Amino acid sequence: MLDKCDLTKEIDDERFEKEIEPLRERLGVLQRTLREQKVAVIILIEGWNAAGITMTTHEIVQGLDPRGFTLHAISRPTEEERVRPFLWRFWVRTPQKGRIALFARSWYSRAITEEMQKVAWKKSLDMKTAAINNFERQLSDDGTVIVKFFLHIAKDEQKRRLEERERNPLTAWLVTPGIWNLHRNYDSTYPILDSFIKSTDTDYAPWHMVPATDRKYTILKVYQGLVKSLEMHLENNGEKAGQDKKRETERRKMVPAKRRSEPEVACTKEECQGLLNNLQIEMLEIHYLLFKRHIPLVIMYEGWDAAGKGGNITRIARYMNPLGYNVIPIAAPSPVEKEHHYLKRFIEHYPKAGHIAIYDRSWYGRVLVERIEGFASETEWRRAYGEINEMEEDYVQSSGGGIVKFWLEISKNEQLKRFEQRASDPMKTWKITDEDWRNREKWDQYSVAIDDMLTKTSTKMAPWTVIESDDKWFARVKALRTIISYCQEFL
Amino acid sequence: MLDKCDLTKEIDDERFEKEIEPLRERLGVLQRTLREQKVAVIILIEGWNAAGITMTTHEIVQGLDPRGFTLHAISRPTEEERVRPFLWRFWVRTPQKGRIALFARSWYSRAITEEMQKVAWKKSLDMKTAAINNFERQLSDDGTVIVKFFLHIAKDEQKRRLEERERNPLTAWLVTPGIWNLHRNYDSTYPILDSFIKSTDTDYAPWHMVPATDRKYTILKVYQGLVKSLEMHLENNGEKAGQDKKRETERRKMVPAKRRSEPEVACTKEECQGLLNNLQIEMLEIHYLLFKRHIPLVIMYEGWDAAGKGGNITRIARYMNPLGYNVIPIAAPSPVEKEHHYLKRFIEHYPKAGHIAIYDRSWYGRVLVERIEGFASETEWRRAYGEINEMEEDYVQSSGGGIVKFWLEISKNEQLKRFEQRASDPMKTWKITDEDWRNREKWDQYSVAIDDMLTKTSTKMAPWTVIESDDKWFARVKALRTIISYCQEFL
Repeated sequence: MLDKCDLTKEIDDERFEKEIEPLRERLGVLQRTLREQKVAVIILIEGWNAAGITMTTHEIVQGLDPRGFTLHAISRPTEEERVRPFLWRFWVRTPQKGRIALFARSWYSRAITEEMQKVAWKKSLDMKTAAINNFERQLSDDGTVIVKFFLHIAKDEQKRRLEERERNPLTAWLVTPGIWNLHRNYDSTYPILDSFIKSTDTDYAPWHMVPATDRKYTILKVYQGLVKSLEMHLENNGEKAGQDKKRETERRKMVPAKRRSEPEVACTKEECQGLLNNLQIEMLEIHYLLFKRHIPLVIMYEGWDAAGKGGNITRIARYMNPLGYNVIPIAAPSPVEKEHHYLKRFIEHYPKAGHIAIYDRSWYGRVLVERIEGFASETEWRRAYGEINEMEEDYVQSSGGGIVKFWLEISKNEQLKRFEQRASDPMKTWKITDEDWRNREKWDQYSVAIDDMLTKTSTKMAPWTVIESDDKWFARVKALRTIISYCQEFL
Repeated sequence: MLDKCDLTKEIDDERFEKEIEPLRERLGVLQRTLREQKVAVIILIEGWNAAGITMTTHEIVQGLDPRGFTLHAISRPTEEERVRPFLWRFWVRTPQKGRIALFARSWYSRAITEEMQKVAWKKSLDMKTAAINNFERQLSDDGTVIVKFFLHIAKDEQKRRLEERERNPLTAWLVTPGIWNLHRNYDSTYPILDSFIKSTDTDYAPWHMVPATDRKYTILKVYQGLVKSLEMHLENNGEKAGQDKKRETERRKMVPAKRRSEPEVACTKEECQGLLNNLQIEMLEIHYLLFKRHIPLVIMYEGWDAAGKGGNITRIARYMNPLGYNVIPIAAPSPVEKEHHYLKRFIEHYPKAGHIAIYDRSWYGRVLVERIEGFASETEWRRAYGEINEMEEDYVQSSGGGIVKFWLEISKNEQLKRFEQRASDPMKTWKITDEDWRNREKWDQYSVAIDDMLTKTSTKMAPWTVIESDDKWFARVKALRTIISYCQEFL
């Protein structure tokens, strides 16, 4: 796509002045309209070094109400970002509905930069391409408008600009040896960049290629592209032009998970406690190895009310170093969280390298409570299975870590017994609420949703483990055993 | 206080087992009660190296519901934390009401460690002591319970434990040359630590000194101290024992700021634009210098509705590098924000070293809208003047940065004129709401609150500048000029 840019394009002052002002005003109006309609917008400016990314960003900012956007200048990741998966730092920066996130450089620059420093960059870049396309498609499906610009200049022009910057004391420090090195690699970078742009030019997040030799022409093109993209979104009432979104055909290896509430083999409380004590040492060692080797681990609990998630988590955690894990209790989303993509609040809590994050309930709320209670539309929860599979696969691939997913199954009778126990024990009544009883009335609906979930999201990379929890002691042993054997295979 | 610890204390297994279990259960009950009553709790464990901080943390965690607390293991600050004031990383970790934040090491270890690496540590540590006392008092005033433990062991005992750790392959890597170095400095650290503990032993956040030679005794003492502190808080119904809180007598140098809405000297639009163009170059250079020297700057706008905050910010920002500043629009607090100390959400947005944060409205909402509308009680908003002064002083001292505070003053007539203009211009009606008209009816009440604010919070370290804004062009020139001359003096 780079070679289609006519780099000789330029524009005279008079025409520029005449055309830019109405565009600027129009952008202001569009920003307000999009805010009212609660549309999130991502604008990203990419390009060669010295192509004018900062200058272009500055110009766009002039047309925007500063209270409605956040600017993200993306360079080297911080320590907190380096110890998490590649897209994490971008997920946490996705805009709230009604706001604009303006990226000066983005995941594209980072993918190229981080990959070219390694040897096996080609394979890894392909993987990142798929992850980026998934990321952008998921945001687009959620109603976010994504407008991407690439500022293109020729090698000669880049050289001229770098030399000019070196002559100016205010900018000379920007031109490091590394920048010159990238300049020398211009020709070899070209095809890689071109193919990267082509394979991320989707109908839900198309690229605008901008010939950036002439400063004024660049600004005008960017403004035109931006205004047009936003107008198109409003005209189509949020409907994307092409509904056939480029989506990898889903051919995942699935690992069936069958529900049952009673363990096949009975086990007394004493036996179980003995087993737990033995497993404790293994777990401590495994936790230590994860830490030493900088491997993150996600452990996720879902299950019926009163299935024993809390108790199970407490017992498991007892065998971990408290400085190396976090329990993430998931409640209903807050009003602000509701104005973001539903996956964002879970991704924010991804464990850092070497740490364990234990989710007490999870993103599967989308296909359980949100499905049953109608908080998510049918389109949304049906789409969620694929989105969740993508998210989990991306997590495993890009973090180098693992994920253990538990479904705690109990029988309807066992649940009733526990509800009644809780209601009658003054030390435990706090554990039971009217909502629990209401959920119980919907047992059959939940049952269908759970089966769908276990069928559609038990992938080879992130399989479900059903924990037969009518016997809570057995459940604790099985959970700890599963974590240990998963890690042993994995470490 | 260290010498009052009897380091020979120990306890036998039988007594330990008998006493610990009821305490653990009691802690669980207390945690639930505090959650129901929406009380935030900070527990911090400090002590000598190898005194058992991790072990003690592990034990406390056993008594807690994992869904109700967050553990913060504090070691070296991350990059993001290093470029912000000392207490920033702790402010952002303060717990929501109803939750517990458990700190394994804390601001105390950090203050000591970071100070002892410098030469002028004594003076700087005194300053940190004052800042820490203010921090803890402010949280306590807001209803947070703070329980602090110091685990004390003798030098010999420390040596024995470090050697033991060196012999165990699972822990040997923890014993670095740095740790041995600290051990060798035990005797010289002792008096510094002792004086630090003494001067932070307040009635709102007292220290519990724990002789930590015997492991079981340590655990028991910590549990007893914790349960007792939490029970005391509940018994007193949140009233602190001593109401005479240790508070620095406020003898600040004040800089009077007088309100007026009309500039003394008139200035035509054209003249102002000319002046703005000239100032632009200075502003760009200043922004560059701030960046180069890693100095952060806070610019804060308060003012009447329609006083022109938005337009002023946009014009000022035009002369800055977009990658080097952020505009922080402040709206009413979200439900989650309301469950934290009111200053937290502003502190979270402190600029990092070399950056500019422009606050569009600010923490002064506490003594303006929250006072007038009764969202803050009289005790709360009266307390706020001192709290805000402390916060601003701490920001200036600990960040090495600056703060510029603007009050945009217009006359009541000018406001009416602008409201009517906005209402009749279809491009501007979005700017005016019913709330603006309601606020206008309370002009006189606001007027009193504004005068109080300008009198009580215009300190030498963070003075107010009143911008006469009946003439919006003049206002823009004055704002830009003020920033430039403030920075020139400061840089």
